[in-house]
Amino acid sequence: MPKEPTPALTREICAFALETRIENIPVEVLARGRIHILDTLGVALAGAKAEASGIVRDHIEALGAAGQARIFGTGVRTAPRFAAMANGTAMHTDNFDDTSPQAAPDRNGGIHASAAALPAALALAEERGLGGAAVSAAYHVGVEIACRLNHAVDNRHYQGGFHTTGTLNVFGAAAAAARLIGLDAARTSHAIAIAASQASGIRANFGAMAEQTHAGHAAECGLNAADLARRGLTGAADAMEARFGWMDAASLGGGWVREAICGRLGRPWAFEDPGMSIKPWPNGALTHPAMTLVSRLRREHGIAPEAVEAVSVRTNARVRDILVNDAPADAMQAKFSIPFAVGCLLVEGHAGLAEFTDETVARDDVRAMMARISYTAYEREEPGYTNLTTLVEIRLADGTVHKDRADQAVGGARNPMSWDEALEKFRGCCAYAGMDAARADGIAAMVAGFEDIPDIGALTARLAG
Amino acid sequence: MPKEPTPALTREICAFALETRIENIPVEVLARGRIHILDTLGVALAGAKAEASGIVRDHIEALGAAGQARIFGTGVRTAPRFAAMANGTAMHTDNFDDTSPQAAPDRNGGIHASAAALPAALALAEERGLGGAAVSAAYHVGVEIACRLNHAVDNRHYQGGFHTTGTLNVFGAAAAAARLIGLDAARTSHAIAIAASQASGIRANFGAMAEQTHAGHAAECGLNAADLARRGLTGAADAMEARFGWMDAASLGGGWVREAICGRLGRPWAFEDPGMSIKPWPNGALTHPAMTLVSRLRREHGIAPEAVEAVSVRTNARVRDILVNDAPADAMQAKFSIPFAVGCLLVEGHAGLAEFTDETVARDDVRAMMARISYTAYEREEPGYTNLTTLVEIRLADGTVHKDRADQAVGGARNPMSWDEALEKFRGCCAYAGMDAARADGIAAMVAGFEDIPDIGALTARLAG
Repeated sequence: MPKEPTPALTREICAFALETRIENIPVEVLARGRIHILDTLGVALAGAKAEASGIVRDHIEALGAAGQARIFGTGVRTAPRFAAMANGTAMHTDNFDDTSPQAAPDRNGGIHASAAALPAALALAEERGLGGAAVSAAYHVGVEIACRLNHAVDNRHYQGGFHTTGTLNVFGAAAAAARLIGLDAARTSHAIAIAASQASGIRANFGAMAEQTHAGHAAECGLNAADLARRGLTGAADAMEARFGWMDAASLGGGWVREAICGRLGRPWAFEDPGMSIKPWPNGALTHPAMTLVSRLRREHGIAPEAVEAVSVRTNARVRDILVNDAPADAMQAKFSIPFAVGCLLVEGHAGLAEFTDETVARDDVRAMMARISYTAYEREEPGYTNLTTLVEIRLADGTVHKDRADQAVGGARNPMSWDEALEKFRGCCAYAGMDAARADGIAAMVAGFEDIPDIGALTARLAG
Repeated sequence: MPKEPTPALTREICAFALETRIENIPVEVLARGRIHILDTLGVALAGAKAEASGIVRDHIEALGAAGQARIFGTGVRTAPRFAAMANGTAMHTDNFDDTSPQAAPDRNGGIHASAAALPAALALAEERGLGGAAVSAAYHVGVEIACRLNHAVDNRHYQGGFHTTGTLNVFGAAAAAARLIGLDAARTSHAIAIAASQASGIRANFGAMAEQTHAGHAAECGLNAADLARRGLTGAADAMEARFGWMDAASLGGGWVREAICGRLGRPWAFEDPGMSIKPWPNGALTHPAMTLVSRLRREHGIAPEAVEAVSVRTNARVRDILVNDAPADAMQAKFSIPFAVGCLLVEGHAGLAEFTDETVARDDVRAMMARISYTAYEREEPGYTNLTTLVEIRLADGTVHKDRADQAVGGARNPMSWDEALEKFRGCCAYAGMDAARADGIAAMVAGFEDIPDIGALTARLAG
């Protein structure tokens, strides 16, 4: 069929990658970026303990490659591509990393963009002795490109089985690398085209470790694409928008949404609209509005576990049908259990990676608290309810009742975490990783002034094991 | 929409990969395999001289990885994944490697399967000190899986822009590696699933160097998938046939042809049906029927260049419309020129990589011969003509006329090259690579007894530079 002329998307991506100056990124975006960098480093340190991360490290260490880039949580230094693979895997392995949502309500499939753009930028900058400002700009460019591609590719890409955290992150990583290396426009274009030939990832691997490597593999391939382009390997100048190009192939014949990316890169930034969410707890996101309420009520009213007589949680029936594990047998089932999520918060005061274990699920005090929690669906959805609207009522032994409503969770794209909230999560991740609190706070202090770090190695050295 | 239950394709691929015994591969298939191995090694040696191959080698050598696998044409030894990437790129870089065609006439997109299965198997076997029989079985298993997947994936995969030499070869390489490593069925299944998350390649990069790396990248990712699975990384047990699995995603919503692969792996072998073609000359395949005729007439009748008065070549109008470069300005244009292809053969007696150069195109004697060649379309297609049917008439100065008709070229899947014909091409490739004839013939002698090579390193050592 005849096609309208397409804007030169490949060229536009390259121009954005190379011409963006950190001075022109809004200070609010940079501030949000630092919160997300902190969060991503925290989940990387925690994720380095996961089984998939260890396997990937073994796989990489056996290569004995030379390089200065650090694998976080270890003493290993290697070539940037392998550090990016290992660190990107650690960031995404617990599915506890940040998410950029779709912009339109009729589309689905967020993208975990930080887990590819950040490890790619950090590893390359470390190898080249670059500073925080360069990394920050590269990170923002990479995240922006991945997010806008995720808005522009036809929804059939995700619906058909491709996993955007694998397939689209490679472009962000390649763009971030191109500007850190200082490629010219032609070679940056080649890098994007090479990346288009290495973009991969399918959703069938959800729930298996293969999926946990998607962001890391994308980061590695993005760095490879930039390095090959630097050395002279060529790609099609219109690899994104050409016939037989990435956007058409990825859109499964569905066409792609030009106006979602052309003219939109950084206008506004995806960090501004549609925003970016940080996962406050490492379990199913549908439980998070209830956990947001319980966490706040507990803190505001100083509710002790023994004071709790009964808790009622209500969501709509669709959510109720998904969160079915009222009596979870193990940690995996507990990830989709309202009684465990709420009960754990009331007993422990927090519910991080250290709590989502088979041991905690089996504990008597946790089970006793879970027995006091009822979870039902409300019959009517009132005007103003969102799909996530959750009602919580906590009745205490002295007759006091605390209740509240949340339309979304803390950390959501429209209800973003503050630095302090993200810092609390970061500290929990560091503790889970076995890092002492002083060292964790030292890292956070550096990230708070990320763009002023003269040599990024000063930060990454603190992330090594 | 509801789906019929699908056969367990992932399991079937794994069983075929592990349970195939070399004793059960027909001797005719093994014999054809040796011809294709010889051909693939020849194009690898020649292709190692190409620009893309040098870039990939630089990219790899900079990693300084440890390993025993050789990069052909050089003295470099590295980890198997990188040798597979470098050698696979060298094999495909000139697009002079073998092709497995589609089985059905209404589908298009052959796959260059040897250029991924062979370098993957050789590199891993070299690292592990395995022999020719093990490599041969792994090569055949890998080629078979890639070819049958290419018959089974919906035609929209290729039509939509994906390049099967990238996307499908990763499965053949992973399967070949799994059996060489000796993975069990569960880990082989994980390897296939991991490969499904690393399958990539788009057609927009045709004509650029990025495309020349597709087979090598697939070989590398296949080896990675097997190594990660060996170390314990998991993937979905139904990654191929699942909802959101590879076959549905790759088929762009078009469904896939179960009966083209399920129950068909090795029954018969793709080497038997639909066969496998070897490219006799490194230019556009549509010129090859004419070149087949001219080459034969020249040899049979001892036609000297100065004896030629006029040559007439006729094809159908569709082919005539594609081969438009009657007066090529350079080597790239000469690849789609009947006068150059035929003229070069008549002057030089051969038309290999050494002849498809700007210098040969500009030579006076070649141009003088080209001036004697007319290329027209016949008006009527007679019964029995194929799309490729070509008529050639050579009129000599003494009035003699030699003429003949070819319905396809030598080396086609239904008109396969003999060992001797392939050996002639191999010798030309070796000469182009600067290898002396005795060494080339020594390699060929080893390949003639490929399955009897005790340690594959004895062969690969001769391929090193």
